[in-house]
Amino acid sequence: MTDAFAKCQLPPEAESLTSLRLYPFYRPVAERFGDGEVLVEGRRVLMAGSNDYLALAEHPRVKEAGVGALRRLGAGNSGSRVLNGTLALHEELEAELARFLGHEAAMVVTTGYQANLALAPLFGPRDVLYADRHAHASLIEAARLGGSPLRRFRHNDVAHLGEMLAADDPELGRLIVTEGMFSVTGDLCDLPAIAGLATAHGARLIVDSAHDLGLLGATGQGAGEQLGHQDTIDVQTLTFSKCLGTTGGAVAGPARIIGYLRHRARAALFSASLPAACAAAALASLRIVREEPERRRRVLEHARRLRDGLAGHGFTLPPGDTPTVPIEIGDPVTCCRFWTALLEEGVLANAMLPPAVPEGRSLIRVSVTAAHTEAQVDRLLEALATVADRLGPIAGRPGAVARV
Amino acid sequence: MTDAFAKCQLPPEAESLTSLRLYPFYRPVAERFGDGEVLVEGRRVLMAGSNDYLALAEHPRVKEAGVGALRRLGAGNSGSRVLNGTLALHEELEAELARFLGHEAAMVVTTGYQANLALAPLFGPRDVLYADRHAHASLIEAARLGGSPLRRFRHNDVAHLGEMLAADDPELGRLIVTEGMFSVTGDLCDLPAIAGLATAHGARLIVDSAHDLGLLGATGQGAGEQLGHQDTIDVQTLTFSKCLGTTGGAVAGPARIIGYLRHRARAALFSASLPAACAAAALASLRIVREEPERRRRVLEHARRLRDGLAGHGFTLPPGDTPTVPIEIGDPVTCCRFWTALLEEGVLANAMLPPAVPEGRSLIRVSVTAAHTEAQVDRLLEALATVADRLGPIAGRPGAVARV
Repeated sequence: MTDAFAKCQLPPEAESLTSLRLYPFYRPVAERFGDGEVLVEGRRVLMAGSNDYLALAEHPRVKEAGVGALRRLGAGNSGSRVLNGTLALHEELEAELARFLGHEAAMVVTTGYQANLALAPLFGPRDVLYADRHAHASLIEAARLGGSPLRRFRHNDVAHLGEMLAADDPELGRLIVTEGMFSVTGDLCDLPAIAGLATAHGARLIVDSAHDLGLLGATGQGAGEQLGHQDTIDVQTLTFSKCLGTTGGAVAGPARIIGYLRHRARAALFSASLPAACAAAALASLRIVREEPERRRRVLEHARRLRDGLAGHGFTLPPGDTPTVPIEIGDPVTCCRFWTALLEEGVLANAMLPPAVPEGRSLIRVSVTAAHTEAQVDRLLEALATVADRLGPIAGRPGAVARV
Repeated sequence: MTDAFAKCQLPPEAESLTSLRLYPFYRPVAERFGDGEVLVEGRRVLMAGSNDYLALAEHPRVKEAGVGALRRLGAGNSGSRVLNGTLALHEELEAELARFLGHEAAMVVTTGYQANLALAPLFGPRDVLYADRHAHASLIEAARLGGSPLRRFRHNDVAHLGEMLAADDPELGRLIVTEGMFSVTGDLCDLPAIAGLATAHGARLIVDSAHDLGLLGATGQGAGEQLGHQDTIDVQTLTFSKCLGTTGGAVAGPARIIGYLRHRARAALFSASLPAACAAAALASLRIVREEPERRRRVLEHARRLRDGLAGHGFTLPPGDTPTVPIEIGDPVTCCRFWTALLEEGVLANAMLPPAVPEGRSLIRVSVTAAHTEAQVDRLLEALATVADRLGPIAGRPGAVARV
């Protein structure tokens, strides 16, 4: 007899990184100070790994909206939206999200991950799903749950997408899915070209705005607005855990599609609903997004300062002007050395290793937020340059010479 | 060209139920009063559809724990546990959960639904998963994501499970999955017999304790403890949305398995972590579960009162003594008539239609909680008998004669 648990081995890299004292994951934050710094392992360090771009998770108005709802409605809802877990607050949030984004309707679910899984009923066995190779894991899982064949086009490679669309049986339904702003590399999808292909091939277009909702576009609708193509997006998925500073997610789109998902999406039907505190916090954040465009401007100015500074230090970055910046390293052990050295310099960043990135493409992801000051951005820049100087050539700075 | 959205039609029953003014889903709760009553459509009604069995969602200590954490740590964590979203609070909760349940380790994730999805890496293509036919949708999705063949044995039918185990290639890994207390029918799994089969066939045993954690067993460990077989459970999955009164979930089991899932479970790796308010509320609830066994006793006394009363009124119930009680109706339209008539009597219950139940087995699910008084339980009983008398014979009360 074979033990089903025999296969459950820790990945070898986890063990070797631990033995090298370079393990970069699951580091607990003990305190947050609201000023871009956090307490990690007894030290106050600069948080350069947060996607709370507008710094709303710690905004007093957002927190007090959560506190009020928690006290009034309780710490949880005990059941799913469909049965006993719908609050008037969920409906208010859905209406405001839909109006804000220019969609007919929205459905709020309990996490952003589940917002993408909730797309599964759109991805049937008589459809084909075309997904950017960098599209989020949750979108890929939705295709598997829905039973749709999946084609992955090279990152932002519209010619590749076009070939795939032309090769498939036109009797199949077609859906194209991409991220607005890519979560790992911080670049934007080529929405104008993709939207053109969607129209030409009768495909539906789905954009995951997890990272760009609230951050990009004149009013904060996301990458679609920034690229002048918000109205070409059929269905937009959202998370509340980035610019809205809390947890939860939503699917926005035509009323008929949202109604269909409300009755078919298992990730919505079979999960307890979003707690009142999170729904209220998301609603408060959404209003701040509308009322305070200066937060977007501030973080984008920080992004420019960081990106320009890195270029000045000899780093090569992928195109983009967003606050999420990938420093490409290459192999995972060097990446973890870089991450550990950064922490020693007082900076907490994200180490992205396979399977989050392709093999050989390990990278350090840093982000700036509206909580940071220019001085903190400069400190981050300085730390990155210092560590890179010390470690020598990396993929994202090939010309460097180690100063060890 | 085929429009991928052409298939997205509202299910016909949703439209017919709406036109009959019998649509029982997504009814918003505007207020909760902390006394077992809620405000729905402007009316104060008895909440008989909650799974907050211990009434902890509205417990002052639980709410204030959430408020404190929200103010100290913010409304959200912006990223996943693995990168930037782990709080010291998550680790504290994991340690207490593991100790409480007698498992080596636990992994906290953002929803109970995702706790079951996080099992996917255990369900590989070289395994076979045996699942009770009533097992939760999320467990079935995990099998699909993991790629494991799935065999569904008849509900609690150990002979059927035994035949399936005997028929399969012994070289495949085997895993048996069931719910401790079944969420729809309120009965318990036949754990002693299932555990015996697991041992005989070298199968691993996974129990979803969503509804029984905190409620059943002398100390509240769940159905395993109540049935004297807690130590036969290899992996136990949990939700915080029932007895712990908030949102979130966890997987508990051997340290090696939890470590493996931490590095492989996409539902954990690719989702923003549980907000501080929910983690703190779950921790406060867990402590109340330990310190106040009288809450469990109270709700189980209510359950007995309700079940005995229903039997006295001629209802036939499946075996069990839990606070979730299914009233079997049969066809979905009659079920929705029953649900609507109950609401007119001032009682909010759950209508369970396919696909949540098998075709022809639509039912009304009612639950009592520690927030209810005996007088409220009697009111619920009275309302059920009144409505059943009015509507005539139903599957769960075949001898009744309509009094219309």
